[in-house]
Amino acid sequence: MTGKHTWAIPEGYIPEGSTGPEPEMRSHESLCVLNTADEEATVEITVYFPDREPVGPYEKTVPAERTAHFRFDEFDDPEAIPEGEPFASVIESDLPIVCQHTRLDSRQAENALLSTIAYPGE
Amino acid sequence: MTGKHTWAIPEGYIPEGSTGPEPEMRSHESLCVLNTADEEATVEITVYFPDREPVGPYEKTVPAERTAHFRFDEFDDPEAIPEGEPFASVIESDLPIVCQHTRLDSRQAENALLSTIAYPGE
Amino acid sequence: MTGKHTWAIPEGYIPEGSTGPEPEMRSHESLCVLNTADEEATVEITVYFPDREPVGPYEKTVPAERTAHFRFDEFDDPEAIPEGEPFASVIESDLPIVCQHTRLDSRQAENALLSTIAYPGE
Amino acid sequence: MTGKHTWAIPEGYIPEGSTGPEPEMRSHESLCVLNTADEEATVEITVYFPDREPVGPYEKTVPAERTAHFRFDEFDDPEAIPEGEPFASVIESDLPIVCQHTRLDSRQAENALLSTIAYPGE
Repeated sequence: MTGKHTWAIPEGYIPEGSTGPEPEMRSHESLCVLNTADEEATVEITVYFPDREPVGPYEKTVPAERTAHFRFDEFDDPEAIPEGEPFASVIESDLPIVCQHTRLDSRQAENALLSTIAYPGE
Repeated sequence: MTGKHTWAIPEGYIPEGSTGPEPEMRSHESLCVLNTADEEATVEITVYFPDREPVGPYEKTVPAERTAHFRFDEFDDPEAIPEGEPFASVIESDLPIVCQHTRLDSRQAENALLSTIAYPGE
Repeated sequence: MTGKHTWAIPEGYIPEGSTGPEPEMRSHESLCVLNTADEEATVEITVYFPDREPVGPYEKTVPAERTAHFRFDEFDDPEAIPEGEPFASVIESDLPIVCQHTRLDSRQAENALLSTIAYPGE
Repeated sequence: MTGKHTWAIPEGYIPEGSTGPEPEMRSHESLCVLNTADEEATVEITVYFPDREPVGPYEKTVPAERTAHFRFDEFDDPEAIPEGEPFASVIESDLPIVCQHTRLDSRQAENALLSTIAYPGE
């Protein structure tokens, strides 16, 4: 299995507020990363906004032969991503990985889900 | 990060009516664009219908290193896109971009979401 | 804009029963096709099942510079697709097209949506 | 129609609990496979976790010219996939296939759906 070093997700949005039991049902926006290599991957995420400079990189690691599901609402270094504002992200990894974008929206009584494989860059 | 100059979204639909607080919860169909280049991208969107000539281009800009989330229900020049009618769109940009398609359907009490990376043309 | 001649959708399912006003809210599974060429495209759809021979081709046309959103629950020639049974589809076109798969599930009080760009074959 | 021999799905999650009539409405996570070849495909699925060794391969077959929709919550050999824990999967086939990932989440009164074509590896 060979992935890519660079991925993009143009859609991003952390809803304001949520319903349901915490934390499983809290509204969240996730980046799911799969690293099938036999070495740890170092992943750098840059977040883009509509009207200000990009923020990042947010540095993450994914161990060898592991998956990691990162929640954008838990990003805090260099800074938290604001709720209620659109954003986009670029994911760069030193090893080939595969990325998928998923959102659980629980602002109302019932949840909604979306998911798509991210865009694999060169 | 390198994107593509041309993208397509065969599915498009602006539901008639909506529920929930405006404008966050209004039903909408969005085109999310990411421009990671260090120059402003000029984006032209052509909208296709089942039974009449295409309309456009709708001209948009996305500043350098920014994301823009365009709502099809807010397109008005050269003309508004009618509610309750299927459409498709082709997005052409002078710089490489990445496009994602998302719909929030709030016609009933609870929302539904869909999203997919658009189709990257040559 | 250049599409592909062949597309595949491994997931297909027409739910049994539905809620809400007809026909907008009836559960349905759709194939959205975009033909940006200046000639009519002839599209042949073959439907695959878990435990019997494929059925088709279902023949459709998409006029020049038009989009068509076909509902699998309205396919009837050579035969209707049964409700409540998984299926998959292959779409072949004489001209390059772009295909997207969308489902509206309205079996319960609130709708659910899914969508993905189909898989572009060689 | 030509597919690929290797596919990846970084997102996986079997929700704990469910609502609605069994088994149609039970929460599930599915892998939809299409084999358009005129021979049976042998498919091996490896499941990755956040913090332990991958499990597999889970061996499946898809007959010639058939589709198969496998539910991850029914995988049991070499072992069941735990509920409430993220996972990812890699699908390898001796024949070219096409893979799609779908989840029906019925933990609350109303369902949510997500779907995406899986990532086609080399």
